[in-house]
Amino acid sequence: MTTATPAYEDGNIFAKILKGEIPGEKLFEDETAIAIMDVMPQAKGHCLVIPKAPSRNILDAKDETLAAVMPVVARLARAAKAAFSADGVRVTQFNEEPAGQTVFHLHFHVIPMYEGVELKRHAFGDVPMETIKEHAEAIRAALAKG
Amino acid sequence: MTTATPAYEDGNIFAKILKGEIPGEKLFEDETAIAIMDVMPQAKGHCLVIPKAPSRNILDAKDETLAAVMPVVARLARAAKAAFSADGVRVTQFNEEPAGQTVFHLHFHVIPMYEGVELKRHAFGDVPMETIKEHAEAIRAALAKG
Repeated sequence: MTTATPAYEDGNIFAKILKGEIPGEKLFEDETAIAIMDVMPQAKGHCLVIPKAPSRNILDAKDETLAAVMPVVARLARAAKAAFSADGVRVTQFNEEPAGQTVFHLHFHVIPMYEGVELKRHAFGDVPMETIKEHAEAIRAALAKG
Repeated sequence: MTTATPAYEDGNIFAKILKGEIPGEKLFEDETAIAIMDVMPQAKGHCLVIPKAPSRNILDAKDETLAAVMPVVARLARAAKAAFSADGVRVTQFNEEPAGQTVFHLHFHVIPMYEGVELKRHAFGDVPMETIKEHAEAIRAALAKG
């Protein structure tokens, strides 16, 4: 490949959440990944799945990291859809800034979609933390049901 | 889960491409998946990764299908970025119509992103097939190098 991906840097916010240095509204954790709420949601129930293994994005991720994370993404997609009776779910994953990546640790957006409701701008941040915590509770309950 | 995903139906266009009943501009094939050009690209080099296993979308896909497909998605993302010296890559995957899904066989969009260039509307279809074939050639060459 001619275009190199910059090296991973561990000062990013998701690395800090993974290390427990700063809090995240955690929905799920296994040995390979965590899921947390996006605190600047584009739609009700917008959450993130973050592999524990360090990579900047999909371009430098190991195959084993990618293979392990996708079933977790699907699990969160099912739970978030069920939690809010959403009409669909979008999964998006951005690589490098011109693609919309703002945190440089591989992550997948899981965004419940509702008939006739437009997505809000990414990272707008107008939803109170109390509401996000309520939504987190609803997703945890749906995950527990299975 | 309370919200059931409709059953898979094999009359969709990707099932027909997988069966060889209609042509696709094929970039890659292994035992688990194919990659083809999106014939209505949102950006130069927009391609699709389609698992061979039948599922409607991520909501009903088996974990093994999801685990196998993601490394292929990454491989295409790297190749498409390299082929066009793109500045980034978006990976998107839509589940059900309100999320933007138009073909009901699981697939992942791999969309090269270019600094300052907005994405075109999905499924607009204004790029000549000749151009798409040229782009396919460029991605195949990058895959061969990768």
